[in-house]
Amino acid sequence: MRTLPVFDDVIEATGRIQPHIHRTPVLTSRTLNKMADAALFLKAENFQRVGAFKARGACNAIFALSEDEARHGVTTHSSGNHAQAIAFAAGLRGIPAIVVMPEDAPPVKVAAVQDYGAKIVWAGSTPLDREQTVQTVLEQTGAVFIHPSNDFYVIAGQGTAALELLEDVPDLDVVMTPVGGGGLLAGTALSVKALSPRTRVIGAEPETVDDAARSLRDGRIYPPTNAYTIADGLRTFLGDISFPIIYEHVSEIATVTEAGIVAAMRLIWERMKIIIEPSAAVPVAAVFEHPDLVCGRRIGIILSGGNVDLNHLPWS
Amino acid sequence: MRTLPVFDDVIEATGRIQPHIHRTPVLTSRTLNKMADAALFLKAENFQRVGAFKARGACNAIFALSEDEARHGVTTHSSGNHAQAIAFAAGLRGIPAIVVMPEDAPPVKVAAVQDYGAKIVWAGSTPLDREQTVQTVLEQTGAVFIHPSNDFYVIAGQGTAALELLEDVPDLDVVMTPVGGGGLLAGTALSVKALSPRTRVIGAEPETVDDAARSLRDGRIYPPTNAYTIADGLRTFLGDISFPIIYEHVSEIATVTEAGIVAAMRLIWERMKIIIEPSAAVPVAAVFEHPDLVCGRRIGIILSGGNVDLNHLPWS
Repeated sequence: MRTLPVFDDVIEATGRIQPHIHRTPVLTSRTLNKMADAALFLKAENFQRVGAFKARGACNAIFALSEDEARHGVTTHSSGNHAQAIAFAAGLRGIPAIVVMPEDAPPVKVAAVQDYGAKIVWAGSTPLDREQTVQTVLEQTGAVFIHPSNDFYVIAGQGTAALELLEDVPDLDVVMTPVGGGGLLAGTALSVKALSPRTRVIGAEPETVDDAARSLRDGRIYPPTNAYTIADGLRTFLGDISFPIIYEHVSEIATVTEAGIVAAMRLIWERMKIIIEPSAAVPVAAVFEHPDLVCGRRIGIILSGGNVDLNHLPWS
Repeated sequence: MRTLPVFDDVIEATGRIQPHIHRTPVLTSRTLNKMADAALFLKAENFQRVGAFKARGACNAIFALSEDEARHGVTTHSSGNHAQAIAFAAGLRGIPAIVVMPEDAPPVKVAAVQDYGAKIVWAGSTPLDREQTVQTVLEQTGAVFIHPSNDFYVIAGQGTAALELLEDVPDLDVVMTPVGGGGLLAGTALSVKALSPRTRVIGAEPETVDDAARSLRDGRIYPPTNAYTIADGLRTFLGDISFPIIYEHVSEIATVTEAGIVAAMRLIWERMKIIIEPSAAVPVAAVFEHPDLVCGRRIGIILSGGNVDLNHLPWS
């Protein structure tokens, strides 16, 4: 088997996951366009099952398993949307899911994963604790590990969002996504470069955790930083599957300020009346903090998700 | 001219306002349907221009004016969505708008009206202050007064939302809207009874301001109460145009608790990832507080608007 997914794998993923996911709408706003001096096309993955694009990759990875592989279930480590997506997709397939979560994970996220029927195994909060706990789970259960981003099928699944976007709006100058582990950005790059080679693919990242920007610049994977960002889903780093794809196809990683993320999130809530999470606001912030990349152009943006704790909003 | 609008007036309104308003989507959620044990079809007027259905009635009233009538502009009293809608529609037509607002109106609403280019005239906070100020404006300017709900063209315009809903989903058992001044409910009733006579039209109202429920029960218009409700747009009362239509066509006014409104609002935000204002949550609350009206049925709901002060959410 090839190590790196290609566009054919995205097409295969589309057929595989179509029964289980939503084809999300592409939204526009003339107010936003006026403010940005650009034509923005927002792919609303906040309306996706489990509230985020992660349902795509998780469904693709889980439904790609053979009966034999699937027999002992799946496992992953995540305290975010990937955990919910794995629990959701495993439930659809009717196989067990074990999610390794840090003991300090937000209760609302723990409850969401449990609601989808997954089992939670607790780990300490360091990456080493997490790895060791996953290793123990794998040895004890024989489950298949599905990485949140650096996975052949996860990347191919995430690419289906951009494929749909380009079907709806073929003539885009730029497609932007947030970048954390790089699964969405890599999958997006596969679709965009196959369907519209002239379209630039740009990642957007908080400047406090700019490892992807530095990785792209220097041609090697930098480890994650420990710095804070409100876009907590993006505090991860590229992997040996996501990085080569990004390095080949992505034009640029634009970094944005924390204040810019909060302002962009609030702007989308107020003007478009939809709920997006901080990570989804990162490429919107890039539109306003990097006008040179967008002015006068047609920009597709993947709004990655809408899972927010309504009790703790960044402006209250 | 007839005093009361009929369905033909709604059809006429559709042609008149179509260039200026959005055809809003009808949203569904399997989670919500499961919780409600009903099939819910939510007409998302929170995505309407100015963030509320009020754009429909205001456009219809303002574009129905003759050149001569329109010459001196329009005026209204409102501190809510109608004020923005009048300012918006007058701007489209290129005529002046004067909005009479109480001195204690929320600054964010004042700014929104000003942003659309309307002039604000301040009044005291009692209904009498307001009436007197409007009278003065009318005498000084010769502007046309457009009531927020009890107006022939406003009611016909509001009816276009239900017309679109029934075009998209023809076989509904019930259509529900919030009721304050009754413009939306009356317009909805005109469309529903013409297009699908068997479909029941139900209004939903906060129990603290249940004047519409009592008016329907007793066959006469009760004055507004002064009681508090979080659905502040509904603290008004029926008029001599809206009431006869409602009395003839509306099956029931269901009242809901304040806690139910907040819970319904939060539910829609969390599960559907869209922002609705408290008034829009009132019929959703009715779904859960009056299961006898909805269980096992197909329910259309007009989500009236999405204008919320994000700095003051009811659960924070």
